[in-house]
Amino acid sequence: MNQEWDETVDILVAGSGIGGLGSAVIAAANGADVLVVEKAATLGGTTAKSAAYMWIPNNKYLRATGRTDPRDDALRYMAKLSRPRLYNPDHPTLGLPDWEYDGLTAFYDNASDAAEAYESLAGLKFGHAADFPDYYAHLPEDAAPTGRVLFPEESEGGPSGGSILIETLARACERANVPIRTDSRVVELIQDATGAIIGAVVNSAGRTARIRTRRGVICATGGFTQDPELRLRFLDHSYVGGCAARTNTGDLLAIARDVGADLANLNVGMRAPMVLERLKKDPAAVRGSFMIPGDSMIIVNRFGKRVISEKMPYHDFARVFFDWDSQRGTYPNNPLIAIWDEPARRFGGEGFGNPIPPQGEDDYWVIKADSLTDLEKKIAERLETLREYTGPVELDNDFGTTLTETVNRWTQMATDGVDRDFGRGSTPIEQALSAYFGVGDGPNPMMAPLADHGPYYATILGPALIDTAGGPRVDKNCQVVRPDSTPIPGLYAVGNCAATPSGEAYWAGGHTIGFIQCSAYLAARHVTQN
Amino acid sequence: MNQEWDETVDILVAGSGIGGLGSAVIAAANGADVLVVEKAATLGGTTAKSAAYMWIPNNKYLRATGRTDPRDDALRYMAKLSRPRLYNPDHPTLGLPDWEYDGLTAFYDNASDAAEAYESLAGLKFGHAADFPDYYAHLPEDAAPTGRVLFPEESEGGPSGGSILIETLARACERANVPIRTDSRVVELIQDATGAIIGAVVNSAGRTARIRTRRGVICATGGFTQDPELRLRFLDHSYVGGCAARTNTGDLLAIARDVGADLANLNVGMRAPMVLERLKKDPAAVRGSFMIPGDSMIIVNRFGKRVISEKMPYHDFARVFFDWDSQRGTYPNNPLIAIWDEPARRFGGEGFGNPIPPQGEDDYWVIKADSLTDLEKKIAERLETLREYTGPVELDNDFGTTLTETVNRWTQMATDGVDRDFGRGSTPIEQALSAYFGVGDGPNPMMAPLADHGPYYATILGPALIDTAGGPRVDKNCQVVRPDSTPIPGLYAVGNCAATPSGEAYWAGGHTIGFIQCSAYLAARHVTQN
Repeated sequence: MNQEWDETVDILVAGSGIGGLGSAVIAAANGADVLVVEKAATLGGTTAKSAAYMWIPNNKYLRATGRTDPRDDALRYMAKLSRPRLYNPDHPTLGLPDWEYDGLTAFYDNASDAAEAYESLAGLKFGHAADFPDYYAHLPEDAAPTGRVLFPEESEGGPSGGSILIETLARACERANVPIRTDSRVVELIQDATGAIIGAVVNSAGRTARIRTRRGVICATGGFTQDPELRLRFLDHSYVGGCAARTNTGDLLAIARDVGADLANLNVGMRAPMVLERLKKDPAAVRGSFMIPGDSMIIVNRFGKRVISEKMPYHDFARVFFDWDSQRGTYPNNPLIAIWDEPARRFGGEGFGNPIPPQGEDDYWVIKADSLTDLEKKIAERLETLREYTGPVELDNDFGTTLTETVNRWTQMATDGVDRDFGRGSTPIEQALSAYFGVGDGPNPMMAPLADHGPYYATILGPALIDTAGGPRVDKNCQVVRPDSTPIPGLYAVGNCAATPSGEAYWAGGHTIGFIQCSAYLAARHVTQN
Repeated sequence: MNQEWDETVDILVAGSGIGGLGSAVIAAANGADVLVVEKAATLGGTTAKSAAYMWIPNNKYLRATGRTDPRDDALRYMAKLSRPRLYNPDHPTLGLPDWEYDGLTAFYDNASDAAEAYESLAGLKFGHAADFPDYYAHLPEDAAPTGRVLFPEESEGGPSGGSILIETLARACERANVPIRTDSRVVELIQDATGAIIGAVVNSAGRTARIRTRRGVICATGGFTQDPELRLRFLDHSYVGGCAARTNTGDLLAIARDVGADLANLNVGMRAPMVLERLKKDPAAVRGSFMIPGDSMIIVNRFGKRVISEKMPYHDFARVFFDWDSQRGTYPNNPLIAIWDEPARRFGGEGFGNPIPPQGEDDYWVIKADSLTDLEKKIAERLETLREYTGPVELDNDFGTTLTETVNRWTQMATDGVDRDFGRGSTPIEQALSAYFGVGDGPNPMMAPLADHGPYYATILGPALIDTAGGPRVDKNCQVVRPDSTPIPGLYAVGNCAATPSGEAYWAGGHTIGFIQCSAYLAARHVTQN
């Protein structure tokens, strides 16, 4: 049989984000001969675009501050948000499907060990966001409302965390003699007569090779954000696209199906609002608008109404795009329009998808006008250029009148310092997310009246994904399982290409990468020790 | 090879709803030797529970009244509601994926012929709901806002339509010598070396038989409403269950996957609110609450607030259960509570899931009290018994106070005849759906003040499904296709077991069965003529 193979390794890793490079580093440190293939021309996948916050319950930095993060409480917090309708604090699995509960417990039990492994094996240095709150820090189930978030120290918590993380892991791979081949992707898995995975067909820049794997294949290839048809067929809602790596087209779904994997949670993704013109012009570099700064900025729908607290965490914010108006037969909040004034420009900045550009920088996505009346006209014109993302929607005929009423009401509420409609700034996370680019100084630092004269600014936002989170179901070792829950020997799935056990939740900043760094550790440990 | 087979037929039909029996009648009339197998002990599947309204664009009864239903307008109406964000009236497929557009055109082009086929071949007699409006009759895209709905004449438009339809089709099968075997289900499809379907393994009351099919297998086995795990993994939201036949556990998903079918639109279902205690006590007989009668009945969430027009069509009404409150970390509108007064009891009745029982009948799901204060206490107690469906939710501490404010505001608006919050009764369909059990006589017949004294009544509603609408993707002949869009010869899927081309839409009363009766006709025609 050997003559059929072009190459033999212990472990083939597909993907070079935290899931792929993280697995590779751990597996190599455990003595395995590892090869990493990456579909794109560059390393890092979606991780490289992120800030690489990692939400790690019961991490050693939290413990070092004298705080505790008890297991039962942490699991309750996670489970309640993952499956709100099924959650049952008195049930052995808290009301969750067994495999989801197992995934959450494996995460709690190993996430901190995993992070420490990257420190010791890859030389990664963490900073601790000691005071950064969870996204539902105000819920009674949250016994450790701050202190769970780590980030690559060198980034100081800024947007460069992901590229620093990837560089650190790539250097560790180099030290461990783990080759990383770009422009290379797994196109098929190879099974033996028992169904075990014994290798993969890899296409490298057009040439195909059969690579034998003595121990296994770890897939960490990302979700299906960049495949419009898969989004439409499987996700909960209709998204405009997202900030996942452009190569995240869900390749693993068909490959895994062909080897008998059970697919699950194809309906969930991590959401964020996104500046549509940035998506249109630069779909590879665009980021979700993870922080909506500005004390005076308001966000309205095309009927001129505010519909949400502008400071709500992105995963929840983006739900409001999907409110349906049966009587009008339309989604009234899709798209939304952010409107700000001259004073709000001081909150401009790079990174985290800030809709307000830094002063003096390219601002092609910003609509400018001297009056609100003029702004309305220009928004209407700009909307016509975005129909690919919005459908044939137009500003309501009464937009201007309603916007004036909205601004007047906003001014009154901002003067009082209380958002009586949507409670803007009333939770710890709304305050924290807004603070990165600075806050105002009124009675509520999240609120200020919109200036009574121009210039005014606007940009158009649509519902986007960070990435999807469904795919082959995995067990607590990240082994892909069949419909009967038996593992497919030799096959692992890590990260956004796998079915998440976190359901509909987005627990905190670092929800995604915190979980994936642990999955990578679990998969690498299992494949090298079994 | 023949000795491997236990039996040979031209066509095996799985399922005995309108999709199965409809296909069988047409195929038999075209000269085929047909066998129908039904998983349940009784005939009719979900169809038998329905009123069998059929939405049939450009039907002959509509035309006979002198009205027109032009193809381009009808397709625009369907497409806009199926894929609101993608809809583009200037695009060759109106912005839809090709296969969805093809499915809609096949429906428009054949739906009326199909209905006429059941008239001539099965002796079905139709009544015409000449004045019943589409669910978005008020949209400019609706060029035939009334007149598209037919129903079995004998039912007079009442809830018995489905059972009459099934009896009519079953008699036609008998006349055509088409056997119908209950307690019998397809457990596997059999392929030849080319992948074509040449038979099926059928389990009949525990005994397995291999049935050879000379022409094909038509699957009309319903959706996956009754499988909680599949609902969780694939649907857009978390439903409590639904009124589909209890045997609708999505059996075809795994069977079709195993023969290489492409799966699509697993995220969509047809929604309705449902009385939770009826679901709990009698999950086989329960229906969605398709009509919410009563001029004085209001529906509030557990914070005591109205959140929707109570008269909104069920598919859209049920979306409101899924509004998420990030700041509270909960679904505030799930469940909802319908509250009515003594005068509203005159709107009680059987059928269409009316939450108000007929007077003198069993009313175990109704909470009764002499005052609103007492009602609150009893609702709180009853909620505790429904946690299997609601999760651990409780009435808000301020429920009573807020409810009083809500009732006061409602009284004022009802006196004025205008629902300034949710536009209750402002569309043709809201008026029509409410009218079946009678309407009031104030300035707005959909609105009346809640009586200022008890007794008061309440019941608890949750988000349910009529059925799901995803599964193997099909072409315009209802042939199941592979990922590359080539058909799998000999395999057809019809109805809720197949991927619907109608996306997120529910165009009108009869949306589901109107479409399925046409699919059954198309599948039967193709399998007998090719």
